Amino acid sequence: MAEDTTHSGARPREIPDATVVRLPLYHRALIALNRAGTETVSSEQLAGIAGVNAAKVRKDLSYFGSFGTRGVGYDVDQLLDEMRTHLGLQHARNCVVVGTGNLGSALLSFAGFSDRGFCVVAAVDVDPERVGTVIAGTEVGHQDELARLVRDNDVAIGLVSTPPAAAQQVTEELVAAGVRCILNFAPTVLEVPEGVVVRNVDLASELEILAFHQGRREPAVVPAP
Amino acid sequence: MAEDTTHSGARPREIPDATVVRLPLYHRALIALNRAGTETVSSEQLAGIAGVNAAKVRKDLSYFGSFGTRGVGYDVDQLLDEMRTHLGLQHARNCVVVGTGNLGSALLSFAGFSDRGFCVVAAVDVDPERVGTVIAGTEVGHQDELARLVRDNDVAIGLVSTPPAAAQQVTEELVAAGVRCILNFAPTVLEVPEGVVVRNVDLASELEILAFHQGRREPAVVPAP
Repeated sequence: MAEDTTHSGARPREIPDATVVRLPLYHRALIALNRAGTETVSSEQLAGIAGVNAAKVRKDLSYFGSFGTRGVGYDVDQLLDEMRTHLGLQHARNCVVVGTGNLGSALLSFAGFSDRGFCVVAAVDVDPERVGTVIAGTEVGHQDELARLVRDNDVAIGLVSTPPAAAQQVTEELVAAGVRCILNFAPTVLEVPEGVVVRNVDLASELEILAFHQGRREPAVVPAP
Repeated sequence: MAEDTTHSGARPREIPDATVVRLPLYHRALIALNRAGTETVSSEQLAGIAGVNAAKVRKDLSYFGSFGTRGVGYDVDQLLDEMRTHLGLQHARNCVVVGTGNLGSALLSFAGFSDRGFCVVAAVDVDPERVGTVIAGTEVGHQDELARLVRDNDVAIGLVSTPPAAAQQVTEELVAAGVRCILNFAPTVLEVPEGVVVRNVDLASELEILAFHQGRREPAVVPAP
């Protein structure tokens, strides 16, 4: 998973990071249950759908004061509402894509974001061949228009999909424009001022971690007797 | 670099997952240092480039028996070799992309993989409009050809970028074809037999985690006196 860089001050209530990264799994599972018309769910069922063990589900949900009803389970609608409230997803968040190469174009076209309450509403690039084109319904503006686009579109989240050499500069421009959440796809470490949250998604790193686990496993294979 | 090293064969010491996820950060930093012609690096410098604190760097590298030389630091070439060995990256790993929509196309075009020792050598889809097309130099085969493509191309890693409803089925086909490492981009939990490693990249989940941290922060902002 992505590495989380956060420069936070005091938090209202400390929830372990390990719990935080599981909340989206529960949210995703609850959306599926809700769509299927399921009204109640046990911690075991929720655990199965989310791919987490049931004891962890109960512990994680207890941080939010959700204990379910013995013998009945959790009310799906209510838990979905609570999850949205705790994730801060009561209203949609607008996103801007900075850098519209292959990955940026994929981010613009990705339907999965809007299902979960995120709208990609703007995009910028420096390449004159890309500026002015329309990708998945969004017109690509010039990098110089970033601050205006952020303001006009009430953008909360910046998706950085530039080459690594440009990522720090565009991040500074996002921060200067008032963006406080950055999802960074460039394989480089971003420096941000306090109060700005960065998560890094480095796809090659994910492959390296896979290769590591696979390499560890191979020597452990016991030959058949 | 020789494939046989002193590290292979014997079951290595257990390395914490928290260390494993940082190894790609060091690998990436060492590649950059090596390209820049830097011969030695201190743990402080490496920490700065990798975005990790220096004490963690020293602790993480000590798992591999790398302690550096006091007052000199680590030899970049040697540490890069060790990192590659430990990540199992002495030879390139071949990957297949399953599902060539927007995200799959981006994965096929992504230059950052080959820099880090991963080659996307094959792709499949079920959509007749996509099968037979060429994306970034790779011809898209039909899903039915998956097993043959995996065998012919010595594929080690499957990148699953299908719609969620298809992800479990294609994963089973990958596993049946002998693939033991899966990077899953579909927002669903995959069930795999023992011995298969899955890592999940759910982009919407990353946005939710960002929104969570941001939401936690806002109430903590102290108004100016």
